[in-house]
Amino acid sequence: MTIVDRTSPDVSITALHARYRAGSLTPAALVESIAARTAEDPHHAWIRPLSADEMLVYVSALDGKSPDELPLFGVPFAIKDNIDLAGIPTTAGCPAFAYTPQRSAAVVERLIAAGAIPVGKANLDQFATGLNGTRSPYGACRNGLDPAYVSGGSSSGSAVAVALGVASFSLGTDTAGSGRVPAMFHGLLGVKPTRSTVSTRGVVPACKSLDCVTVFATSAADAQTVLGVAQGVDADDPYARAVEAGPASRPIADLRFGVPRKSQLAFFGNDAFAGLFDEAIVRIAALGGKIVEIDFEPFLATARLLYGGPWVAERHAGIRAFFDAHADAVHPVVRGIIGGAAHYSATDAFEAFDRLQTLRAATEPVWNEIDVLVMPTAGTIYTIEQMLDQPVEYNSNLGYYTNFVNLLDLAALAIPAGVASGGPTPGMPFGVTLVAPAFGDPLLLAIASEWLGEDAATTGSATATTRATGAEPTLKVAVVGAHLSGQPLNSQLTERGARLVSTTTTSTAYRLYALDTRPVAKPGLIRVPSGGAPIALEVWDMPVAQFGSFVELIGSPLGIGTVELADGSFAKGFVCESFALSGARDITEHGGWRAYLDATAPIDGGV
Amino acid sequence: MTIVDRTSPDVSITALHARYRAGSLTPAALVESIAARTAEDPHHAWIRPLSADEMLVYVSALDGKSPDELPLFGVPFAIKDNIDLAGIPTTAGCPAFAYTPQRSAAVVERLIAAGAIPVGKANLDQFATGLNGTRSPYGACRNGLDPAYVSGGSSSGSAVAVALGVASFSLGTDTAGSGRVPAMFHGLLGVKPTRSTVSTRGVVPACKSLDCVTVFATSAADAQTVLGVAQGVDADDPYARAVEAGPASRPIADLRFGVPRKSQLAFFGNDAFAGLFDEAIVRIAALGGKIVEIDFEPFLATARLLYGGPWVAERHAGIRAFFDAHADAVHPVVRGIIGGAAHYSATDAFEAFDRLQTLRAATEPVWNEIDVLVMPTAGTIYTIEQMLDQPVEYNSNLGYYTNFVNLLDLAALAIPAGVASGGPTPGMPFGVTLVAPAFGDPLLLAIASEWLGEDAATTGSATATTRATGAEPTLKVAVVGAHLSGQPLNSQLTERGARLVSTTTTSTAYRLYALDTRPVAKPGLIRVPSGGAPIALEVWDMPVAQFGSFVELIGSPLGIGTVELADGSFAKGFVCESFALSGARDITEHGGWRAYLDATAPIDGGV
Repeated sequence: MTIVDRTSPDVSITALHARYRAGSLTPAALVESIAARTAEDPHHAWIRPLSADEMLVYVSALDGKSPDELPLFGVPFAIKDNIDLAGIPTTAGCPAFAYTPQRSAAVVERLIAAGAIPVGKANLDQFATGLNGTRSPYGACRNGLDPAYVSGGSSSGSAVAVALGVASFSLGTDTAGSGRVPAMFHGLLGVKPTRSTVSTRGVVPACKSLDCVTVFATSAADAQTVLGVAQGVDADDPYARAVEAGPASRPIADLRFGVPRKSQLAFFGNDAFAGLFDEAIVRIAALGGKIVEIDFEPFLATARLLYGGPWVAERHAGIRAFFDAHADAVHPVVRGIIGGAAHYSATDAFEAFDRLQTLRAATEPVWNEIDVLVMPTAGTIYTIEQMLDQPVEYNSNLGYYTNFVNLLDLAALAIPAGVASGGPTPGMPFGVTLVAPAFGDPLLLAIASEWLGEDAATTGSATATTRATGAEPTLKVAVVGAHLSGQPLNSQLTERGARLVSTTTTSTAYRLYALDTRPVAKPGLIRVPSGGAPIALEVWDMPVAQFGSFVELIGSPLGIGTVELADGSFAKGFVCESFALSGARDITEHGGWRAYLDATAPIDGGV
Repeated sequence: MTIVDRTSPDVSITALHARYRAGSLTPAALVESIAARTAEDPHHAWIRPLSADEMLVYVSALDGKSPDELPLFGVPFAIKDNIDLAGIPTTAGCPAFAYTPQRSAAVVERLIAAGAIPVGKANLDQFATGLNGTRSPYGACRNGLDPAYVSGGSSSGSAVAVALGVASFSLGTDTAGSGRVPAMFHGLLGVKPTRSTVSTRGVVPACKSLDCVTVFATSAADAQTVLGVAQGVDADDPYARAVEAGPASRPIADLRFGVPRKSQLAFFGNDAFAGLFDEAIVRIAALGGKIVEIDFEPFLATARLLYGGPWVAERHAGIRAFFDAHADAVHPVVRGIIGGAAHYSATDAFEAFDRLQTLRAATEPVWNEIDVLVMPTAGTIYTIEQMLDQPVEYNSNLGYYTNFVNLLDLAALAIPAGVASGGPTPGMPFGVTLVAPAFGDPLLLAIASEWLGEDAATTGSATATTRATGAEPTLKVAVVGAHLSGQPLNSQLTERGARLVSTTTTSTAYRLYALDTRPVAKPGLIRVPSGGAPIALEVWDMPVAQFGSFVELIGSPLGIGTVELADGSFAKGFVCESFALSGARDITEHGGWRAYLDATAPIDGGV
């Protein structure tokens, strides 16, 4: 379902790595072709593309390495020009502000260390102040799918670069929606991770307490791979925040999706997009997701606070010395917005924080009713001509669904959701944004993977990456009796966010006994030196933090030990103390607890 | 070590409950005597004491109840007059501001529901703006131990009430130290709980994002009982925060105490207090605590930010409409402070938040080196005459050690630490404040209990209360082998904050085997239907959230099951799968793993 320029080569991470491994491509050859493409820039996507020679410096650092060691080996990426790349000027879209950093931003350092190759500094709405892409003295950034339309902003060039296949992924930033709106306008995924889990050290501040570094990608798998590398605490970043365990990932069929009431949606006359949003909801329901209509008003009220309140003063605070000395060097629309800071006193600021706290509390109960919020990423798209005619109002319309997310410390993921076949913007892509509480990033990516129909193998590797980065430490638990799916104690697993990962058997070293336990009948799994058989079991994946309270529930004679599986691997699982076998019945011949219960159940299901 | 007016009756919760149970006192008789005492008020401790009739309304609600059902049955408490009590005016120390609430503050409702009896509204520094107690049109509050001295503030009357034995405990508030300084000046404990775990619904704001409701008490046990009742989420409080598991409570001997460098301490000429602080450090060391000198500068810099920065505008925001209309009705010193808000723009506010974030990050590494910060609660005390002469500078001196705590979201507990026998303030009490990361309240109270030498029975009940309120869910784990104290895997327990709670044996239903495990030799504990013996074990108490990662480390053939102890109770503990017994050696005769190792160790300790 991803919509990119189909004439572009496939530069997804998986595709590139396959070609590198097959020897049909080298990183050096790739960067030569990229340099040729970025040199021509009809979209105004670039402020400073790197030359082939500049990129080859990064390529040469890959000598002797391979995709097996480096998850981003030879993967080209674009950098929004408010994020530092050592030795290349950072402009933030304002030539008078430019400086040349000696050190790359923390996130750029991490990506390069993992093998990624920077291809250039991408155009943006100046000082990341805008959602449309026209507010740049380097040229209004044109949409990569249809140059008459805006690219979206403020991470405009970053999205165009990925849409045109010049980069496998790119970095944006997002304070009010800048990492999401351009994703929708190019049929991409836009990851707005939980605030401060990707370091902003080396990023020009917009609103420092709200800024997030974001990722544009063409698949959930790629997004997960990049995010896994990008997240991490930087010791020099006072805002840094370690990734914590968030809501557990589950299939769409096990999730509740909150959708704003019809009357609270706004499409600004774009009926085609309204129809595509309806279709998206139908698709969730078809995948088994539960749709819950919610009151969107507290979220909208929070969104209005961002630009109708003192946060413009945080933009001012971030570049105060420059702005106060060189206001005339600032784009007029941006100058008008940031200059608005002068209208707010410190007392106003504290009143607004109190109001935000009240709104935050008003939104929180929603998360008891839903797991994920789904809404349009933007209600419509405009042509560049339209936007230049109404530069503030139309820009505000683009933020209707985005502005509250960072203020409420939520995780968000923009994903593509179809293309308008009629209406005012035919041929332009629509998208929805999934929103979850902080640290819900892996959950959102898992939903996207299922929604977009990415194949299981890819999804699996994305999940493995999540685990490797410690986003949500889990462990495998083998269950053989009353905890099996559909059995009386299964809820002890699901209540703890555990997820069924496989149905298999033990190795041939076990025997199973029916114990005399009450009120719930239970089997005892006993490992034997010889004469064993495979016993049916389910392997569940449970957050480690929940495991203790689970073990606490297990009564004598059962316990949690180590169980050998059919494939020779081991998992934590139910074992039984041997003293309980006196009088127990050996039911190994049934091959498992469920088969034993079926065989011994009363014929008519009575009593 | 608690220093209160020794001529007062003992109105600790334990003492009152003992007298109620013995029938030597009734709540009705108690409130009659309290009303007689509060009617005379030479200290200016009260703005509005309750009459006996008003208190008897609360007494009558206790009919048919007892201390067995209500943890605060018949316990009198004072309320700082910026906290609402239904039907009685709230003044916040400013007559023109007064209003009569229909509903009590959330915390007052909780205490009354638990049986506590309000005795009156206590004097305070107006709008809780001050640390000394003189800034009140209801009279400068005099120290309850020596009326020539200040009471401390802003929770001045609340501390005096407890020091004079008119209330068993009292409520204060604390934005910059107002719940700690008056505690020291009266030899009391002052609990500044983790922010927002006690609701501020119904409290007149000072700095709404920093305000904490506090408790003055005469023992750690009483403080814990009151805190257990007071904490709880109020649905109408947007700032509400549920209590989370914090750092695990441990004996002083297992803790690291951070102490500021000598050059970073300030006693403002009070050498006697300087000497008492040295003695306090010696006492911690004598109790086995590890003393770690730390760089206090980032904390001091944070403290300076509170009054040298835009947070005065948060005080303004909290009472903006009243202040702007009636500035002339405000105490001149308080007016000067709150009026300072006009000097700060919203941009200044955001710059200060950024600075705070940087300072917070600078303080955080300290918590890797220490468990608790110990410092004087205040460096000195002043007479009322001195304070009125230097109302701003001397007040600032009192906040030297307090102002950073709420900005950094820390938990604090002021405890008494001796009386000056000479120096400029002879006979006046000194105190230290213990500080821990958020949710460290139970840890701090446990330290105080040990430090103050409260008897084990009392301490035990305090700990039990902590558990009952769910502050830190734990479970008992019985270990029999390599996890015993001093054995190779014991650190797997201590690293998870587990605490040794008893050394005992199994019931007589077990046998112990030496297994052939490597690299660490391990025993297998096997329950047997007959022919067992008691096996030595240790019971450890471990946070449930840590238990999962512990179980994850346990390898085959061992597991966690249920072990019967000598007293017939059960605990989670190490069990062994029976298949591993082939070839294992029965070592039951040794009575335990440690005895077996001793018996079989090489004589000279070699190899």
